Amino acid sequence: MNFDYTDKVRGLQEKLQAFMDEHIYPNETAIIEEIRSLGPYKVSPKLEELKVLGRESGLWNLFLPESEHGAGLTNLEYAPLCEIMGRVAFAPEVFNCSAPDTGNMEVLARYGTDEQKKTWLEPLLEGKTRSCFAMTEPAVASSDATNIQSSITRDGDEYVINGHKWFSSGATDPRCALFIFMGKTDPNNPDRHKQQSMIIVPRDAEGVEIVRPLPVFGYDTLDRVTEVKFNNVRVPAGNMLLGEGRGFEIAQGRLGPGRIHHCMRLIGLAERMLGQMCQRTQQRVTFGQPVSTQTVTLERIAESRIAIEQARLLTLKAAYMMDTVGNKVAKAEIAMIKIAAPNMACKVIDWVMQSHGGAGVINDHGIAAAYAVARFLRIADGPDEVHRNQLGRLELKKHPVTSP
Amino acid sequence: MNFDYTDKVRGLQEKLQAFMDEHIYPNETAIIEEIRSLGPYKVSPKLEELKVLGRESGLWNLFLPESEHGAGLTNLEYAPLCEIMGRVAFAPEVFNCSAPDTGNMEVLARYGTDEQKKTWLEPLLEGKTRSCFAMTEPAVASSDATNIQSSITRDGDEYVINGHKWFSSGATDPRCALFIFMGKTDPNNPDRHKQQSMIIVPRDAEGVEIVRPLPVFGYDTLDRVTEVKFNNVRVPAGNMLLGEGRGFEIAQGRLGPGRIHHCMRLIGLAERMLGQMCQRTQQRVTFGQPVSTQTVTLERIAESRIAIEQARLLTLKAAYMMDTVGNKVAKAEIAMIKIAAPNMACKVIDWVMQSHGGAGVINDHGIAAAYAVARFLRIADGPDEVHRNQLGRLELKKHPVTSP
Amino acid sequence: MNFDYTDKVRGLQEKLQAFMDEHIYPNETAIIEEIRSLGPYKVSPKLEELKVLGRESGLWNLFLPESEHGAGLTNLEYAPLCEIMGRVAFAPEVFNCSAPDTGNMEVLARYGTDEQKKTWLEPLLEGKTRSCFAMTEPAVASSDATNIQSSITRDGDEYVINGHKWFSSGATDPRCALFIFMGKTDPNNPDRHKQQSMIIVPRDAEGVEIVRPLPVFGYDTLDRVTEVKFNNVRVPAGNMLLGEGRGFEIAQGRLGPGRIHHCMRLIGLAERMLGQMCQRTQQRVTFGQPVSTQTVTLERIAESRIAIEQARLLTLKAAYMMDTVGNKVAKAEIAMIKIAAPNMACKVIDWVMQSHGGAGVINDHGIAAAYAVARFLRIADGPDEVHRNQLGRLELKKHPVTSP
Amino acid sequence: MNFDYTDKVRGLQEKLQAFMDEHIYPNETAIIEEIRSLGPYKVSPKLEELKVLGRESGLWNLFLPESEHGAGLTNLEYAPLCEIMGRVAFAPEVFNCSAPDTGNMEVLARYGTDEQKKTWLEPLLEGKTRSCFAMTEPAVASSDATNIQSSITRDGDEYVINGHKWFSSGATDPRCALFIFMGKTDPNNPDRHKQQSMIIVPRDAEGVEIVRPLPVFGYDTLDRVTEVKFNNVRVPAGNMLLGEGRGFEIAQGRLGPGRIHHCMRLIGLAERMLGQMCQRTQQRVTFGQPVSTQTVTLERIAESRIAIEQARLLTLKAAYMMDTVGNKVAKAEIAMIKIAAPNMACKVIDWVMQSHGGAGVINDHGIAAAYAVARFLRIADGPDEVHRNQLGRLELKKHPVTSP
Repeated sequence: MNFDYTDKVRGLQEKLQAFMDEHIYPNETAIIEEIRSLGPYKVSPKLEELKVLGRESGLWNLFLPESEHGAGLTNLEYAPLCEIMGRVAFAPEVFNCSAPDTGNMEVLARYGTDEQKKTWLEPLLEGKTRSCFAMTEPAVASSDATNIQSSITRDGDEYVINGHKWFSSGATDPRCALFIFMGKTDPNNPDRHKQQSMIIVPRDAEGVEIVRPLPVFGYDTLDRVTEVKFNNVRVPAGNMLLGEGRGFEIAQGRLGPGRIHHCMRLIGLAERMLGQMCQRTQQRVTFGQPVSTQTVTLERIAESRIAIEQARLLTLKAAYMMDTVGNKVAKAEIAMIKIAAPNMACKVIDWVMQSHGGAGVINDHGIAAAYAVARFLRIADGPDEVHRNQLGRLELKKHPVTSP
Repeated sequence: MNFDYTDKVRGLQEKLQAFMDEHIYPNETAIIEEIRSLGPYKVSPKLEELKVLGRESGLWNLFLPESEHGAGLTNLEYAPLCEIMGRVAFAPEVFNCSAPDTGNMEVLARYGTDEQKKTWLEPLLEGKTRSCFAMTEPAVASSDATNIQSSITRDGDEYVINGHKWFSSGATDPRCALFIFMGKTDPNNPDRHKQQSMIIVPRDAEGVEIVRPLPVFGYDTLDRVTEVKFNNVRVPAGNMLLGEGRGFEIAQGRLGPGRIHHCMRLIGLAERMLGQMCQRTQQRVTFGQPVSTQTVTLERIAESRIAIEQARLLTLKAAYMMDTVGNKVAKAEIAMIKIAAPNMACKVIDWVMQSHGGAGVINDHGIAAAYAVARFLRIADGPDEVHRNQLGRLELKKHPVTSP
Repeated sequence: MNFDYTDKVRGLQEKLQAFMDEHIYPNETAIIEEIRSLGPYKVSPKLEELKVLGRESGLWNLFLPESEHGAGLTNLEYAPLCEIMGRVAFAPEVFNCSAPDTGNMEVLARYGTDEQKKTWLEPLLEGKTRSCFAMTEPAVASSDATNIQSSITRDGDEYVINGHKWFSSGATDPRCALFIFMGKTDPNNPDRHKQQSMIIVPRDAEGVEIVRPLPVFGYDTLDRVTEVKFNNVRVPAGNMLLGEGRGFEIAQGRLGPGRIHHCMRLIGLAERMLGQMCQRTQQRVTFGQPVSTQTVTLERIAESRIAIEQARLLTLKAAYMMDTVGNKVAKAEIAMIKIAAPNMACKVIDWVMQSHGGAGVINDHGIAAAYAVARFLRIADGPDEVHRNQLGRLELKKHPVTSP
Repeated sequence: MNFDYTDKVRGLQEKLQAFMDEHIYPNETAIIEEIRSLGPYKVSPKLEELKVLGRESGLWNLFLPESEHGAGLTNLEYAPLCEIMGRVAFAPEVFNCSAPDTGNMEVLARYGTDEQKKTWLEPLLEGKTRSCFAMTEPAVASSDATNIQSSITRDGDEYVINGHKWFSSGATDPRCALFIFMGKTDPNNPDRHKQQSMIIVPRDAEGVEIVRPLPVFGYDTLDRVTEVKFNNVRVPAGNMLLGEGRGFEIAQGRLGPGRIHHCMRLIGLAERMLGQMCQRTQQRVTFGQPVSTQTVTLERIAESRIAIEQARLLTLKAAYMMDTVGNKVAKAEIAMIKIAAPNMACKVIDWVMQSHGGAGVINDHGIAAAYAVARFLRIADGPDEVHRNQLGRLELKKHPVTSP
């Protein structure tokens, strides 16, 4: 047992921090403003410029473990880097490490055929294209994957796809080349986890209808969550991933790393926010004293520090287990951080907001948008409640009783 | 002691409810959409039409107690009506009962000269104009009124006004005719609560600069909170309210009713949201059962019900005390509801949001915007912490000790 | 609607307060000490002396509404008096207003035959005897009354009673004359709420076995909760209350007033504790300042004040509804206070404990024992969870949906 | 970074677990009962028997890092073993690893003279004697060490000691040989942290007056916290530890390891309690279903699992830092676990208590006593608030601002 980062990680942290200091922070306000003014269907040219630097920086594609395609980092090595990127909303994209591309690339790298890799993965790895993940549906509680109503129907050499999706991350991006789409190929299969499949749908296929971007708490998130309809979309049979009926299996595999990335970014975000609370409360004076001298302020700063440290350690442990015993064995740990990190971030950011008074709720320091991200992540990939139920059942299994 | 509404109140509740059912709810979506598409500097024509009906309804100006100008209701009688209006964001305006006009009209009715009343109050009472309240400043913690930096300087027959304000409610409204502006006339007065004055500033006075509307969590609230600069604005000396040095006193008087109105509206809003949670959780099925059958759902519904009931009773009691012993004696009760109601609403609405999954955070059912309102009201009129400190000190005074 | 106590109530409050000041507080420490040293099976002679005074005081049997036997107070009138008694653990007994006697007397007054009243109720009303309520069983989750396993079997002119009970309040008291015992007369009745009956069991009947007193958190509470076995206990058939199969009905009727009394006492207890926190934090100095000047202290005092006020108002409203529309219609309100008051008291007392440092946890100021009472009442009469489920379902019924 | 225990630790865990399974658990009920029936001033013979086995087991004195006296384990190696011992209240004593002896032995090993070690440390290491730590005083807020009022006055070759202490752990133990006593030798020293000294006081010195044991929530804890008066107690000058004025310094050094041990034991205790909740909720049926199937139960189990995991990781990290960078540099981490672990344990145990209904509050499964331990540890070694203030200030220092 050892709680120090390795020299390799420390070296990358320094390099990444230097890049952030030189290129990201000085341009943060301008890029956020450009993104906002361009609206959801456009790409920020300033961000594209940074991405060129990112690609040349040696900090590109750090996210992909156990693969010849990425930088060769383990989840545990990537985690502290992901955290640094998470401090600025658009930073992950600069290093080709942003959702949903990371998860989609991981799916393609793990489960794609050679042809699928060549056509869809390579441009993504190079940052030339982007991608969308289309799973959640507005009409049903999608955290129960068996509820999914979209259909994928074989018709000769093609599949015909129909469905209504939302929270499909990435769909409004003009660079988006493909959807990874989940639907049912076999809705009557008695094994309810064999009904679903995942398939690649080209972004420009006929019948794909972008309904609307979905601002979260009024903010166009950089995840670009979108409502999309698929109306009799036809794709070649070769676009099927892994095989019919294996969609649930892929989803399980995909969501682990995706969740851990979200958590690490949230930890970085919470750290940044905590720093802002420390600054603000030292600068603001009420009734003759800086707000930072009030014990209620000190308590919140202390509780924030504790909550962040605990969430970070748990996330690092989950990453370590994914590397050493695999995503499946680590499922309890992944569920734990999926629950713990967004709740921690909501709590911390809410305190930071309160410490900023009116400035907090109008997003003048990025606090309201940060809260929106954290709050959304209590729902994305399944609400807390679903994960707590799963985790509770795993715990019960450790304590079998003979009779109720 | 008696917990039933009087027949008079019940009659008005029925009348108001009937109006809501006939005119407000059927037009809610269309008006919200119109307000959004017109943007912050415009007035919704559809809403103006409803306002004509509101004025004819006998439900106009219900808010003004102890005055010949209003409907003659006490705070206790108005409270349950205010709650019904609070269920729909724009409904109070239909009955000329929206912030900041109600507080401003109360100030003018209580403290205004006859001429001030004629010029500024009468058109407000008729709903022909609207008004703005300009107290909070971005540069200082304004919950400590002694921090205020704006200046009101006598110069012959005029006052010269300089200051930078924000969260000035109402300033973007084209119908806005006046600001009630707080600044210091006597910044060196050793009695720090005699330094401030309030003065009427015409909306179209030279030097008034509307900087920007301030969307709360990305939503343009109907309070139209705004950032405004006052650059050497000159107003006649007769615009001074009550007299130099009495600004703090007016603020204390003004904020009581304003707070109670906010609380009642929040209670109505929380009730509506709770109803949506009950509907939604009965309609959504996960893992074979409606979400409403899960005990975690039942617990949240039950806790919401308890929290709403308690906040309502406390608010009604505060209103009763304002009517019977006056705003000053009721200050502890006013502080209590100022703290309790927004926190209650945040808690309830957050659960409602969680129960709606993704739909909750993108405001498809008004939940995210409702949360924004409730969260903002934990800060507006002073953050929770300031009120808790005041309340704590009042409690300590009940328990004197001889020596520390 | 009116939030003032009536003159009648205020008169009784003053009278009761005067009695408390003259007789109860000066003897509090000595009586608590006597009770502790005598142990659970004895009666405090000092307390018996006070009870004589209590009987002569005109403050006797204040609890019994709608009955010729009591003082003729409504629940609403009794509530604020019950609160004053609740500030001192043994005070209710001085006025013959202590659990479980009040609930048992109410059952006998409502449902007893004339003979049952003469034999059992009259001595109780005079304070000559005490009584026990035997419902909860160790082997099953007794909050689901259909789980109850005790049997009441008719055998000629007698009933034969078998069962294992605990948390049977009052059984160790040597003055205890009777049990009101719940068991099943008809365990196979398809209507599961008709299986149970309640019957009077004389305390000295053969086969009654006092197993042990049950100290709560190590404290012998004045409720004297006890484990009791009933081994083939035979009682006359005339001891049946109301009729076979009506036990559930009686329980429902009994628990309403009992719950409201517990809540009022807890509110009084929480008030007293809050006063101690105010005293203590003003007297203790850390790092150069009284603890009361820390904002974290002020926040806790303020939140305690709010929580107590809200719980009191809700309890008073529940009492008002019991008086005006009956216990059955008021079931939601009764459930609400059953949940809210003990949780409020636990929260407040825990803060008070923390403010007293080590002295808090060793019960030097009665704080640990107060916590034990409040914590126990989250479980007594059914745990929070059962009441929240019931309350949640009542709320759902207000919002019917056509299809899930 | 590595989250696996080393082989060495795993070996010791297995050995310790085997000892627990063979000797501790089978005797747990009997020993707890013996301790209770003997009362606070006696030693359990059954426990003494186990201690003989413990001494022979190779699991003796595992706690003492960086010393030739102990087993040579680091804090990080000891932590997971301490956790296993913590599952049973008396188990640490079996291995000579119980408070306050561990802390006292560490003080003597670090700061004692050779003679002090020979006289006092050696018998303690052998488990022949026990010891007491006398720091906290009833009259002042002792978490601010500068408040301490006890005096240590030089008089020739002796020191004269006067003071009133409580929460002096261990004083009622008949085997107790010494107090480590904190008092002021130089109460007027302008450096307020140089006023205090620590000195060894023999248990049988004249003037030592055991006032009373202090049951926590009614339970005689195995820490044997006691109220003690020191009336003109005279001890040889050679009993001074480290030198006059160095008491604060010793206290800082002593409390780090003591705190971490408390935390590890609490984590073990919380784990055990969680297991009981899993068992109980699977066995209890309400309304036709095991309580474990309710989502509210699953949520609590899940949150407990997360909270325990996070507290454990933070404690292990603190231990790692104590080993690698020293107690002083690790002060933030030590403060964090001092806050986090008892609060976590209180939360978990409270849920476990609730899940057990009445059985929980009467300590039938050790739950109430477990709660008492956890609740006490939120106060022992300084209340949460003091540590949060310290931690908050450390955080603020990371974010210097130029002007307030």
